[in-house]
Amino acid sequence: MATLIGEQEIEDLAIGAAILGTGGGGDPYIGKLMVQIAIRKFGPITLLAPHELPDEALIIPTAAMGAPTVSIEKIPNGMEGYNALRALEKYLGKSAYATMPIECGGGNSTIPFVVAAHAGIPVVDADGMGRAFPELQMETFHIYGIKGSPMVIHNELGDHCILNTKDNLSLERFARAITVKMGATSHLAEYPMTGKQVKEVAITGTLSLAIRIGKAIREARMHKENPIEAIIDVTTNSIYGPAMVLFQGKVTGVDRQTRDGFVRGMIQVQGFDKYQGSTLEVDFQNENLIARMDGEVVAMVPDLITLLDLETGLPITTEAIKYGSRVTALAIPTPEIMRTPQALEVWGPRYFGYDVDYRLLEEIHPEYYKQKFKVSEEAEPLEL
Amino acid sequence: MATLIGEQEIEDLAIGAAILGTGGGGDPYIGKLMVQIAIRKFGPITLLAPHELPDEALIIPTAAMGAPTVSIEKIPNGMEGYNALRALEKYLGKSAYATMPIECGGGNSTIPFVVAAHAGIPVVDADGMGRAFPELQMETFHIYGIKGSPMVIHNELGDHCILNTKDNLSLERFARAITVKMGATSHLAEYPMTGKQVKEVAITGTLSLAIRIGKAIREARMHKENPIEAIIDVTTNSIYGPAMVLFQGKVTGVDRQTRDGFVRGMIQVQGFDKYQGSTLEVDFQNENLIARMDGEVVAMVPDLITLLDLETGLPITTEAIKYGSRVTALAIPTPEIMRTPQALEVWGPRYFGYDVDYRLLEEIHPEYYKQKFKVSEEAEPLEL
Repeated sequence: MATLIGEQEIEDLAIGAAILGTGGGGDPYIGKLMVQIAIRKFGPITLLAPHELPDEALIIPTAAMGAPTVSIEKIPNGMEGYNALRALEKYLGKSAYATMPIECGGGNSTIPFVVAAHAGIPVVDADGMGRAFPELQMETFHIYGIKGSPMVIHNELGDHCILNTKDNLSLERFARAITVKMGATSHLAEYPMTGKQVKEVAITGTLSLAIRIGKAIREARMHKENPIEAIIDVTTNSIYGPAMVLFQGKVTGVDRQTRDGFVRGMIQVQGFDKYQGSTLEVDFQNENLIARMDGEVVAMVPDLITLLDLETGLPITTEAIKYGSRVTALAIPTPEIMRTPQALEVWGPRYFGYDVDYRLLEEIHPEYYKQKFKVSEEAEPLEL
Repeated sequence: MATLIGEQEIEDLAIGAAILGTGGGGDPYIGKLMVQIAIRKFGPITLLAPHELPDEALIIPTAAMGAPTVSIEKIPNGMEGYNALRALEKYLGKSAYATMPIECGGGNSTIPFVVAAHAGIPVVDADGMGRAFPELQMETFHIYGIKGSPMVIHNELGDHCILNTKDNLSLERFARAITVKMGATSHLAEYPMTGKQVKEVAITGTLSLAIRIGKAIREARMHKENPIEAIIDVTTNSIYGPAMVLFQGKVTGVDRQTRDGFVRGMIQVQGFDKYQGSTLEVDFQNENLIARMDGEVVAMVPDLITLLDLETGLPITTEAIKYGSRVTALAIPTPEIMRTPQALEVWGPRYFGYDVDYRLLEEIHPEYYKQKFKVSEEAEPLEL
């Protein structure tokens, strides 16, 4: 059943997707404005569930690439993603039936809507990361066999390259190098695939989940309720799993470097209330990767780690976090499709250079999750 | 009048083009072998003068890009240039009538012949540099208004990118970044143009001149004559101008770094015979750029500076020069099309970071050139 997405849903999406974006995926503000302008001009945008796609339809995901620190200063002209889509359609000699995001994230969840509005096509309610990740091969599309190329990379001047590579790691390498030369930000049309392939390899329902999360936070704030509880409720009722509070405190240090087309660094948080005396450290490469409390790992990729403003429950991205921010650190378990051995090879902690084996968030925090899953755990064994 | 190019002409071309290549343009040996194998398989290759091209014919130049130091270790599979041509033809929806070099140089003068042999098309007797230069926009094509893109960049694995840029400087930037990620060497099909444009913007006759130079050296060596004199004779009778000996001595130092897709450095030569007690220093970026004798500039870009083996007269490229080499440093004035104000902006000494105005080789060495041009200088003024 197709849903129509209007300005309010985009408002909610920008918030919810930034929470799933684990600090990355780009600033939600600019992307939101771009879609809202497009909706005013072209009307609401159709959101399609993957199962509504014809098997043979051509789906072309669209996105921005680069360092989020740069994308908030080097504002897109708004047509880069659309131009990338059109250039790839021309190269393939076929029109796209729909576009879709490659990741959840404030910016990259909204760009396909800008493209869709201008192209007059729907957006598919799915993505390839289930969160945000910094590199192009970090996609269920890649993990489950789809080629990222031919891909178009486009800048605001009209410069564009069509990349054809044997493997998706080379695609990341070439595209990153071009992105750096484009000023550390670019727009992409990539991983062209059929409707059938989307159904097989995409993480489904992530856009509507992000909208639900954003809406829950908005309504909680409206009714002076706790937005964190609202997030926990929505994620519990999803393919993810219950969010949990890792930490609360004040940011006392941010080490951040923009280099090689990424922003990398570390955020230090001094705890208060029940976390008084403890320190949380969160490493990031565009997105938050690993969180350590007093040196002990409390959450790691691919599970989601998001910092929220303590008062409002709104997410803070890695390029915006700063000294003095009072934050709640939230973790969310990822869907099972993102935790297979093939998937962990692509985006487990070892890929990012950490000498630790991946542990499920639920394993690291058995007490919390035992209680959260208590219904099923306490169920009586079936008498056979 | 079309000429047929066989194995002997390629032997001569490799030598002559390396002399015009001023130390760059790639090692002549590998390119020569590739063409000779192709000629054995497909027969002699047709060389066409620009005026023989139909005005509306599509001409696609082909070349290698990257650091010459790398190209002698990372051997091409031989089909990269051909594959680049085919990919660009496909993208343009039109077949190439002929290919041609973008520069003179041991490697880059031979690659179009490999491509031509496999594609069954002629090579145009012209190029866009009249020597070798390190960057893609250093082309008479660029200087006189031709767009370098759409361009295809191809590696040995089949990875390729189609670049479309608003200007040729961006093209160089993106292509260089991709080349670095391809391992500092790549192959190109670029500056697609019409036969009419080739006639207007190319430096004509440079391939046949290189073959004449190579042949003159070969014959001089066969008859135990001085190969340097042979080079001077051939260049005197060309659109270039008489070569001159700048220096003779022994290489006592080579500073060479391969970085950012280039090889850069400096060669130091201690003089002997009439140059005893003097030092020549030659700076290079892939190609020799400027030569100073005891601190005084004796030749500079775009004029040609080439180091030859003292005994054989054979050229030594910047990646092959080493301590102990006994060399003759030769300079050759460039054709007038390469010395216009627009041209000097693109490849004059200031572009390469030297704080000196370009001076003609003939101005720096008036005595030598007065004598060389004495016939015309001594001619009686016409009685009117």
